[in-house]
Amino acid sequence: MTETMYMDAKMQQFEEDTERIIKFLGEKSYFKARDLILKYNEVDIGEILEEVLDELEVEKTIILFRMLPKDVSVEVFSYLPSDDQLAIVRGITDREISYIIEELDFDDKIDFLEELPANIVDKILEKTPKEERKLINTFLNYPDTCAGSLMTPDYISLQETMTVSEAMAHIKREGMDSETVYTCYVKRGGRKLEGIVSLRSLVVANDNVRISELMNTDYVYVNVYDDQEEVAESFKKYGFLAIPVVDKEHRLVGIITVDDILDVIEEETTEDIERMAGVMDGSDTEYLDMGVFRHVRNRLPWLIFLTISLMITGTIIGKFEAVLSQVIVLVSYLPLLMGTGGNTGSQAATLIIRGMAVDDIGLKDALKVFWKELRISVILGIILSALNLAKVVFVDGQSIMIGMTVAISMIIIVIFAKLLGGLLPMAAKKIGIDPALMATPMISSLTDMVSAVTFLLIASVLLGIAL
Amino acid sequence: MTETMYMDAKMQQFEEDTERIIKFLGEKSYFKARDLILKYNEVDIGEILEEVLDELEVEKTIILFRMLPKDVSVEVFSYLPSDDQLAIVRGITDREISYIIEELDFDDKIDFLEELPANIVDKILEKTPKEERKLINTFLNYPDTCAGSLMTPDYISLQETMTVSEAMAHIKREGMDSETVYTCYVKRGGRKLEGIVSLRSLVVANDNVRISELMNTDYVYVNVYDDQEEVAESFKKYGFLAIPVVDKEHRLVGIITVDDILDVIEEETTEDIERMAGVMDGSDTEYLDMGVFRHVRNRLPWLIFLTISLMITGTIIGKFEAVLSQVIVLVSYLPLLMGTGGNTGSQAATLIIRGMAVDDIGLKDALKVFWKELRISVILGIILSALNLAKVVFVDGQSIMIGMTVAISMIIIVIFAKLLGGLLPMAAKKIGIDPALMATPMISSLTDMVSAVTFLLIASVLLGIAL
Repeated sequence: MTETMYMDAKMQQFEEDTERIIKFLGEKSYFKARDLILKYNEVDIGEILEEVLDELEVEKTIILFRMLPKDVSVEVFSYLPSDDQLAIVRGITDREISYIIEELDFDDKIDFLEELPANIVDKILEKTPKEERKLINTFLNYPDTCAGSLMTPDYISLQETMTVSEAMAHIKREGMDSETVYTCYVKRGGRKLEGIVSLRSLVVANDNVRISELMNTDYVYVNVYDDQEEVAESFKKYGFLAIPVVDKEHRLVGIITVDDILDVIEEETTEDIERMAGVMDGSDTEYLDMGVFRHVRNRLPWLIFLTISLMITGTIIGKFEAVLSQVIVLVSYLPLLMGTGGNTGSQAATLIIRGMAVDDIGLKDALKVFWKELRISVILGIILSALNLAKVVFVDGQSIMIGMTVAISMIIIVIFAKLLGGLLPMAAKKIGIDPALMATPMISSLTDMVSAVTFLLIASVLLGIAL
Repeated sequence: MTETMYMDAKMQQFEEDTERIIKFLGEKSYFKARDLILKYNEVDIGEILEEVLDELEVEKTIILFRMLPKDVSVEVFSYLPSDDQLAIVRGITDREISYIIEELDFDDKIDFLEELPANIVDKILEKTPKEERKLINTFLNYPDTCAGSLMTPDYISLQETMTVSEAMAHIKREGMDSETVYTCYVKRGGRKLEGIVSLRSLVVANDNVRISELMNTDYVYVNVYDDQEEVAESFKKYGFLAIPVVDKEHRLVGIITVDDILDVIEEETTEDIERMAGVMDGSDTEYLDMGVFRHVRNRLPWLIFLTISLMITGTIIGKFEAVLSQVIVLVSYLPLLMGTGGNTGSQAATLIIRGMAVDDIGLKDALKVFWKELRISVILGIILSALNLAKVVFVDGQSIMIGMTVAISMIIIVIFAKLLGGLLPMAAKKIGIDPALMATPMISSLTDMVSAVTFLLIASVLLGIAL
């Protein structure tokens, strides 16, 4: 389609320009690089600088960064990943750092400070006015993944006694410094949150209507220590642009806007997906930016656990030496049965884990899941059994008894694996373990054991071999 | 923490009330049920009705739905999943349907009509004014996952010659029918998109400033046939509240708002995660709402593919009968090596697939991925080998040669699996296949084969057994 081709053309242009900027910097043609980069908006400039930092020495990036107009450079800075922010901060003067800190939006400032080494943070805070320093310290102390760490104190406050035209005049004065003007907050008696008013309702109302008549007192809010995943759920459910954050006295301490939630959703999903593959990493460092030893540390714990589980399976198989040595051909069907157990179990586990993550499936649905997976697994088990029976007997030319051993084991293993995959994540959630840990690696190591035992037991019975 | 307990208390109250509403309806105490449900907002009422539909006959739900105030019922309707919408539509009169259709926001209307059987759509469209019918038909014809299917034509248009106060008056008149008032669109000469103006810039500007001075002409837009995944990327990258959609003549055909994007992100992520587990489902039907045969159809293709791959692995193992029958104990280490290959490969594949999905990793990074996975796998391989060597020799009491067979195979398999897991998803993307398909099932079926061959070959060499 032409449209998609056009989109690609834009992206190609962007990539070519990035290459040219890197080339210019390599040749020290800084002005050419600056003129070219300024064709783009701040988000794109941030992406280009990321590329430049990957390719060239940090000094060159800093020269280019310093040549940007001041307002542009602050915004670009706010879009950079924290390791790149740190690289730049290390190369610019204290005065430049102070300027950036001062100009950053409050929530970007907190995000930035959170990632900095403590000594740099202290140096920065020294130069901050006392009131703001106190506020920054409060915000820095919220745990990393709670509502408090996402919020900003820059919102518009209105009084219930204001008229619409007074409120609009207030917004006109304060609007540029606020994170959003599209939802305004009405507080009473100190800082207790009374209600919220959308700018839309202000704009369509008549000038002399009072805020008290327009405000919504039945609003949804979150608590400052609520987990960011719950906050994201509220945004998804209600389609908000912003949500108020209150403390336990119901005082308004900040607001969270939807743009920050998109990042949270991405982060939380990545964490889930990685856990589902047995990678444990709490940080949001990108794959390429993470050191080799950190990668090893993230992957090793599960691998050790899985190795031990596989060793046990091996030992169990060893106990059936009598069966295996008499009918050595059984060995060649072992991977088939173990693999199918893992594959069928993983499918069920993944669907259930994801279903619970997006709140489609709750603990109360355990019986429904059981019944559904039971029926699915019987059908799948019969199909796969028939396929394997045919293959064992007609293609491999083995006896009917060996064919039946494979086929009967297959049905049992598929049913077991689907039920385990369906119910284990729910059981984990019930006892407070993250269901994402009950995905492929866990399920397949459990089904491996059961598959091996099932197959070899049935073989010894059907083929009449004493264990 | 008290805060979280409070959140849970709210949720518990909600669940108790849902139970009570179901009980009231069961006893035909409809008025009690209605009074209780009206304590909640429309989104929550929607959730309660979903529960009611799961538990009781559809007729009871319809009676309750009809007892809601008309404006509430339309909004609640828009939040229901499409199968529940259909259930309700089948039980209410044509007049009630017409009312709902008329009152729904345009994009909700399209979403609803898209899911209805064609004969019901025709019946509904008969009663719609001709102009709107034409528009609806255009929107219904956009492919399901493109920008066109997400957009709404209800946006605020301004003229560049307007002053701020004229623009605000215009927004006051039109604001209630528009999907958003927070971004307004300036068109010129027919319907060509000229620029965008945020309501914030209007509110903070002086009354007699012209729109032409405020509007941003360097805005980001999407094309009507762009894939919804690309649209979501733009929202994530730039943090927009809304994005304009243009056709190939650059005419503004609609806008997409951020609340609809949250659903898209969830949908796309679910599809990715399911594919990564070998479940192929194009629909967004929830797990519990999907029939058993549909589940079977979604899972069977990959299982058949994987079974065939496992059969081949089995046949390969069969070729090593000579080795296995002489040293039967090797059989008990086969699952260990095959399993570890699958587990280590899956970790790498998952990280790369997710990294590409969130644009942290591009095809140009293939060499970096190769180098990183190579170092990681050497370290992990050595650790796992040492662990296994010790276990085979000291715990199992096997000979050093068998220990070395396991250990050397382990290193080779881990390196191979990590490199395959890292690079196969990238290769898939390069040739236009969804990288998500190169996750655990695919990787582990490939590593299974290679693991078996590696182990048995090394065994035959080290133990001096002719094949």
